[in-house]
Amino acid sequence: MSNEAYQRLTQRTARIGALGEAAAVLHWDASTMMPRGGGAARGEQLATLAGLSHELATAPEMAEDLAAATTTEPWAEANLALMRSAHVRATALPTSLVEAMARANSACEKVWREARAKSDFAMVRPHLEEVLRLQREMAQALSAATGLLPYDALMEGYQRGVTAAEVEPVFDAYEVFLRDALPRAEEIQARRGPPAPLQGPFPAEKQRGMCRRLSLQIGLEAENSRLDESVHPFCGGTPSDVRITTFYSEADPAKALLGVLHETGHALYERGLPEAYARQPVGEAAGMAAHESQSLIVEMQACRSDAFLSYLGPELHKLYGGDAAPYGAKNLAGLWRRVSRGFIRVDADELTYPAHVILRFRLERAMIEGRLSIADLPGAWAEGLQSLLGIVPPDDARGCLQDIHWYDGGFGYFPSYTLGAMAAAQLMKAARTATPGLDAGLAKGDMAPLLGWLRANVHAQGSRLGFQDLLRAATGKPLDPMDFQQHLAARYLE
Amino acid sequence: MSNEAYQRLTQRTARIGALGEAAAVLHWDASTMMPRGGGAARGEQLATLAGLSHELATAPEMAEDLAAATTTEPWAEANLALMRSAHVRATALPTSLVEAMARANSACEKVWREARAKSDFAMVRPHLEEVLRLQREMAQALSAATGLLPYDALMEGYQRGVTAAEVEPVFDAYEVFLRDALPRAEEIQARRGPPAPLQGPFPAEKQRGMCRRLSLQIGLEAENSRLDESVHPFCGGTPSDVRITTFYSEADPAKALLGVLHETGHALYERGLPEAYARQPVGEAAGMAAHESQSLIVEMQACRSDAFLSYLGPELHKLYGGDAAPYGAKNLAGLWRRVSRGFIRVDADELTYPAHVILRFRLERAMIEGRLSIADLPGAWAEGLQSLLGIVPPDDARGCLQDIHWYDGGFGYFPSYTLGAMAAAQLMKAARTATPGLDAGLAKGDMAPLLGWLRANVHAQGSRLGFQDLLRAATGKPLDPMDFQQHLAARYLE
Repeated sequence: MSNEAYQRLTQRTARIGALGEAAAVLHWDASTMMPRGGGAARGEQLATLAGLSHELATAPEMAEDLAAATTTEPWAEANLALMRSAHVRATALPTSLVEAMARANSACEKVWREARAKSDFAMVRPHLEEVLRLQREMAQALSAATGLLPYDALMEGYQRGVTAAEVEPVFDAYEVFLRDALPRAEEIQARRGPPAPLQGPFPAEKQRGMCRRLSLQIGLEAENSRLDESVHPFCGGTPSDVRITTFYSEADPAKALLGVLHETGHALYERGLPEAYARQPVGEAAGMAAHESQSLIVEMQACRSDAFLSYLGPELHKLYGGDAAPYGAKNLAGLWRRVSRGFIRVDADELTYPAHVILRFRLERAMIEGRLSIADLPGAWAEGLQSLLGIVPPDDARGCLQDIHWYDGGFGYFPSYTLGAMAAAQLMKAARTATPGLDAGLAKGDMAPLLGWLRANVHAQGSRLGFQDLLRAATGKPLDPMDFQQHLAARYLE
Repeated sequence: MSNEAYQRLTQRTARIGALGEAAAVLHWDASTMMPRGGGAARGEQLATLAGLSHELATAPEMAEDLAAATTTEPWAEANLALMRSAHVRATALPTSLVEAMARANSACEKVWREARAKSDFAMVRPHLEEVLRLQREMAQALSAATGLLPYDALMEGYQRGVTAAEVEPVFDAYEVFLRDALPRAEEIQARRGPPAPLQGPFPAEKQRGMCRRLSLQIGLEAENSRLDESVHPFCGGTPSDVRITTFYSEADPAKALLGVLHETGHALYERGLPEAYARQPVGEAAGMAAHESQSLIVEMQACRSDAFLSYLGPELHKLYGGDAAPYGAKNLAGLWRRVSRGFIRVDADELTYPAHVILRFRLERAMIEGRLSIADLPGAWAEGLQSLLGIVPPDDARGCLQDIHWYDGGFGYFPSYTLGAMAAAQLMKAARTATPGLDAGLAKGDMAPLLGWLRANVHAQGSRLGFQDLLRAATGKPLDPMDFQQHLAARYLE
């Protein structure tokens, strides 16, 4: 079925995969456990792993075996195609460019932290100009090697199988939808009056217990996961050992709770990846938009649904005591599905979040294509937000300085958030149709019906398919933004 | 001062060092944090790091640069000598032998766990025979490459700069000393009557607080260390990020307390290694006997001294309350410096511990030299223990099955324990002479005077010197077992 060259390739990619797993655990450790004094040495360790990984990926034997490898087994074919694509990307960039980017990104990110704190864009501007210059150089080099358009070649680094030309009309349509939907949602919300706040106290220890319990209840296994604390919550680790982190605010139990449910969605995806292809490219998740679809289908689609809130409310009331009324499903929906025009992406609600992403997508694409200079960025940001949400940021800290992505060399990532949200709605609709008892399960806190469908149709597929093909196989069609709009309409406009 | 070949070598060894650090953190994680389901993947990660490290160490460029490297700077000279020696050892063993050992050790260790539980030596005997056969092959290969005698070549893997011919008379003399000292110590102890037990409860949380506090008080920095829990306590991590583990018994607070003080000694050594040579061979600790000397000088020499116990007792009484009398320094000495002839090495007191090591040293040396077969091991063990301590193990579980070392391919390690204990006494004597106020400090819980001397004379030396030369530089003479005997006589025979 597969020749010896292919067998050698799988051994080599398994080593690269193992290095990646080791780095993932070291990253987790750095955010959760490592004493501060270990930082410099950790940097050396991670740089060494990254360097060796790159050397393995670009070794001459790799190119020889990629040229000679053949297989007739479909998964192995997909695996081989991914190896070839990764090799093209790894060898497309000269070492001098990779090193220049590492230096520029690191320098820019450091200055950005201070610039954001002072809301002083001018301070970081020359650094960001250098980062962008190098990003454009990278995009050109990747474009030449892959045949993709420059911006698409950057996007491919985060999510394979979808182009800006496909994203653009989807985002444009959303803008039109939002122009009508947002004022209507606000009006409906205003008519309902403000929800009643939950009554504390919410001790971190109780929150932790509930977060872990729910995380396990909806499908994680205790033997293959952990829940810890870090300043910036994330899901890390490896598929057999997933590690969720969160941050407990004793003033508001919703932040950690909904955050852990979100990360649990990521973790369930990792847990469901095909074990037979562990540490192989085809055994990995299908990309960042696919990953975000799994966190959002759990957090937004399932756990913020009326059905699940009707289960969750009494559980929380049992835990925290006090007045029962605020724990009613309707009131929780009022608290946790509140629409509001804000400046900050990470604080945005489900309806306005895409506006933040659309703004960034348009701006970064224009920057990569040379249509927007860094000097004009703050102005373009203000204009774009005004046009999308009707508000203008009072300063750059709440404008183009708020996100780390660009300042750390991350161009092409932003669309993943909203592609994920849209895919989540589309997948949920398909799951609901295919799975009787899905909502009845949610109303009892039982996510098994939904999870069973996701495991078969998304998780177990690894990265055999690109974004659009994955959706096609699972739902019968490529990305269809109407499913997301219908979900939003049902939730916010009725 | 140093040529380009040397510079390239330091870059390559720094990568090997960084891989070693990454593996150390992953080992720590596996013992403290990792959920059980992560075990198989962790095995892959560690095997990959070990394999890459070996490939870097044996790459053809390494041999070329080692041949061409020159330097005139003394530390760099020592570093280069260590690189050459490591290269000789790494290339002395054919890959087939390394792989056969990995398989045989792993298979034997697995069977040993069951054999020990059942006290069934016959069950593991063929496995141990295979392990020994391969260890002898390794010893021959290393001997041919290094010019050392076969057993010395194995010992060198754990502690450089001391030979069995030097160890043998030292151990023989200890046997003579013990024959007289042990019954006298027992008699003195019997005359004093049994110490009063400490009154519980000893909640784990209180123990943890005290262990951490003492660990920091005697010299660890919070920014560069952690204290966690694991089944088998150890000191791991990296020099800028040392990680101590312990196990809390709520029945007996001494186990964790003295264990943490022991591991703190190891940790202080790592913290004091020369930062300028981080991730270079010469920047590492000088070997296992040197390491054990640092754990024992803290635990046995300093913290079980009358002076420190007079400080520690009231602190513990403040923490646990109850009757104050058992916390008196004399009573604590009665509890924590109790002499007893036992079968188990890890439970042994300071006076009889060397007898357990001498027994193992003689047996493993005879096995490597072909003078003792595995079939005759249980009999030789019983005979040896009878001769050293006057007791015979009732079964093999409490005899030759008790320690993991041999069953996991660890021949040549055992002498390090007692060489370390002896070196600790010798270093303590020299430190006392050179440092006024050392004992006055201990009586106030202040280890700064001792630590200052150790940092300058041991820690900051890295592995510039072998075991005997390190002692010579620090104390003016090679290993002198009389210092240890004097220490024991003062503590147990007066």
